[in-house]
Amino acid sequence: MTGQATLFVNAAQTVTCAGPAAARRGSGMADAGVRTGVGVAVIGEQIAMVAPDDRLRQRFPHADEVDCDRGLLAPGFVDSHTHAVFGAARYAEHELRATGVPYLEIAARGGGIHASVRSLRETSDDALLALATERIARLVAGGVTTLEVKSGYGLSVAEELRTLRVIRRLRDALAVRVEATCLGAHEVPREHREVAGGREAWLAALEEELHPAVAREGLARFADVFCEPGVFTAAESRRVLQGARAAGLELKLHADELHDGGGAELAASLGAVSADHLAAVSDAGIAALASSETVATLLPATMLFLGTGRQAPARRLIEAGAAVALATDFNPGTSPLTSFPLLLTLAVSELRLSAAEAWVAATVNGAAALGLAGVTGQLAPGFSADLAVHAVDDHRALPYWFGERLCRVAWSRGRACHP
Amino acid sequence: MTGQATLFVNAAQTVTCAGPAAARRGSGMADAGVRTGVGVAVIGEQIAMVAPDDRLRQRFPHADEVDCDRGLLAPGFVDSHTHAVFGAARYAEHELRATGVPYLEIAARGGGIHASVRSLRETSDDALLALATERIARLVAGGVTTLEVKSGYGLSVAEELRTLRVIRRLRDALAVRVEATCLGAHEVPREHREVAGGREAWLAALEEELHPAVAREGLARFADVFCEPGVFTAAESRRVLQGARAAGLELKLHADELHDGGGAELAASLGAVSADHLAAVSDAGIAALASSETVATLLPATMLFLGTGRQAPARRLIEAGAAVALATDFNPGTSPLTSFPLLLTLAVSELRLSAAEAWVAATVNGAAALGLAGVTGQLAPGFSADLAVHAVDDHRALPYWFGERLCRVAWSRGRACHP
Repeated sequence: MTGQATLFVNAAQTVTCAGPAAARRGSGMADAGVRTGVGVAVIGEQIAMVAPDDRLRQRFPHADEVDCDRGLLAPGFVDSHTHAVFGAARYAEHELRATGVPYLEIAARGGGIHASVRSLRETSDDALLALATERIARLVAGGVTTLEVKSGYGLSVAEELRTLRVIRRLRDALAVRVEATCLGAHEVPREHREVAGGREAWLAALEEELHPAVAREGLARFADVFCEPGVFTAAESRRVLQGARAAGLELKLHADELHDGGGAELAASLGAVSADHLAAVSDAGIAALASSETVATLLPATMLFLGTGRQAPARRLIEAGAAVALATDFNPGTSPLTSFPLLLTLAVSELRLSAAEAWVAATVNGAAALGLAGVTGQLAPGFSADLAVHAVDDHRALPYWFGERLCRVAWSRGRACHP
Repeated sequence: MTGQATLFVNAAQTVTCAGPAAARRGSGMADAGVRTGVGVAVIGEQIAMVAPDDRLRQRFPHADEVDCDRGLLAPGFVDSHTHAVFGAARYAEHELRATGVPYLEIAARGGGIHASVRSLRETSDDALLALATERIARLVAGGVTTLEVKSGYGLSVAEELRTLRVIRRLRDALAVRVEATCLGAHEVPREHREVAGGREAWLAALEEELHPAVAREGLARFADVFCEPGVFTAAESRRVLQGARAAGLELKLHADELHDGGGAELAASLGAVSADHLAAVSDAGIAALASSETVATLLPATMLFLGTGRQAPARRLIEAGAAVALATDFNPGTSPLTSFPLLLTLAVSELRLSAAEAWVAATVNGAAALGLAGVTGQLAPGFSADLAVHAVDDHRALPYWFGERLCRVAWSRGRACHP
């Protein structure tokens, strides 16, 4: 590696998460590689060296320096599950749900996912881009340097492709790394629900039109399905995912969010990179994830925002040997959350992870949930220079300072993305 | 009222919470006085007029203007329950508790409230002042314009008085309004626990020395007791509070946080301004609060941070006719939360309040919980000019945008306190 080096020095503590280029599973999540007196050298888009400050300065005597000012130096967070491209917010629904109005009535009053479909279709590409840019900036301000963005509010072949093209523009425009997922199978479109055979027609459109077009145009790396009783069955999800794989896409799955639908088992059996949500995962689902490469991505803010009074069985997943990741699920209906650090608080307080496990879940395992385990999520030589400095002196302080964003500096691929 | 006026104009929506100078009870909480096209005129420390922008400009043609830029104009939040003066943070405990280490073992390892007592005693007045100033600035950045601060980590007569003198310095130095509470009865001091008769000696010291000294020196308006099985019994709490009242202090009470100890009934029977926590309040306690003037102050962040999996029965309290307030409980052990707006999210999602009820709980009823119902918490003529402008266009948006601080401007007593 040649070129001008930049040294991140004078950290009080450094979370490296360094290790194999793979998800950390089970008890392997307990070690976040927390060190003191260690800095990072960046050359170009990569991390060149992780070592004590004086050794970095010896090796790179003419380097620029970023003073961490006795803060915490850490990998940038990887937010592996967002629906960050949407039109209007959905304020009314939050209150209606809280005060006991059932989902079907909320939907009948024009709320729910179909509200976001209507809104997205009415919003121009440029407006969607501007809204997403502003919203993603809040995620980045918390130290997120890689995020996934799903389509799924288009729900027609043309509108799904349009959404994914907006995501491509985001990917090209933003300093942070963006990975795209096609979630045409977010729901059966309303116009299909109202006609005989419409459900089958949408499944066929996904298989025959949308996923091939997405793959052809290189618009997304992943396909995803909302596998949940009342949305898509496990059998339908299997069909959609197999078709998507045949078209050349990798697989993710919304699995067992509120009811067990066999989603975890399906994701594991198909070798999906992740099974997401899992608040209602069965014992069989836990076992399936533990014996697969599929990352169990937990979205604790969603369960909290929905007021369900429960959370995914994170400890049982880890004890079974699964790899657990954390993500915001940022979306207008069930998780309008753009503060990634709040997830660390929820991970410790609600999911009962240790602080180190929460860090691993937020970095290495998030990367693995996007097929990026060899690329980002670690402070280690050869990894992408995706890092953040937080204004705390201890890795346990970020989960602790509930509701704060303490990120002072974030870099993605060797360039400042915050402030 | 004479003097130069300042007009807050061009708000998209205005939450006035205007009405009687008293807590809103039961169904009375449902109306937050949400209006459109309405601004506020401030003269000196007070609100002079609340009216449509053009009428304000007619009445005060030479006024200065603050452009709300289509944001939300609202009363400043009243945070009626904090322990904001403390020394070191308690990171380790958060993780230990989450991973299942029982409280007694955490205490044996040097954690718990006694850790904060040790830390406070080792920290100079100036250092405590500096730490509290920085921490309170985060509360204010979320739109808090009045807050209560308790002692309770001194736990000797001298250290309690020292803490309250630090709080007095805060009160004199900060732009926001600070009300002080003496919480000498936070716990039995460790040095008293270790000797025969020590518990009784501390109760006597509170009654005979601390509370009279606090009242004499004007160091606090309120006395408070941690009434909870394992801390102080209802009988002990009654004794302490009656003594405090005799000394000239008003009363607050930590009541029924994790176990029902008859705290709510006690607070109501003594006419305390508030009973706080209440996650384990009994039906009799709810009935007692509903038929008293005592405000039920709920601290949902604490229950979340502790990972208890439950919350105070907010809806039952409101349906019974009680007045519910929200507060952060900001403290180093069980609620290191300095984002007041997050409480609004928790109020809707977890406590099942409507957005309007959450606003009333965060303003008018917080004021009532500090005996300030006629002073702050409303945008109405004659009230203190304590107000905030948030970068949203709807009062439901603040609970909705989970984890954000969207406060652009805050004023306390007619002066800018943020930014």
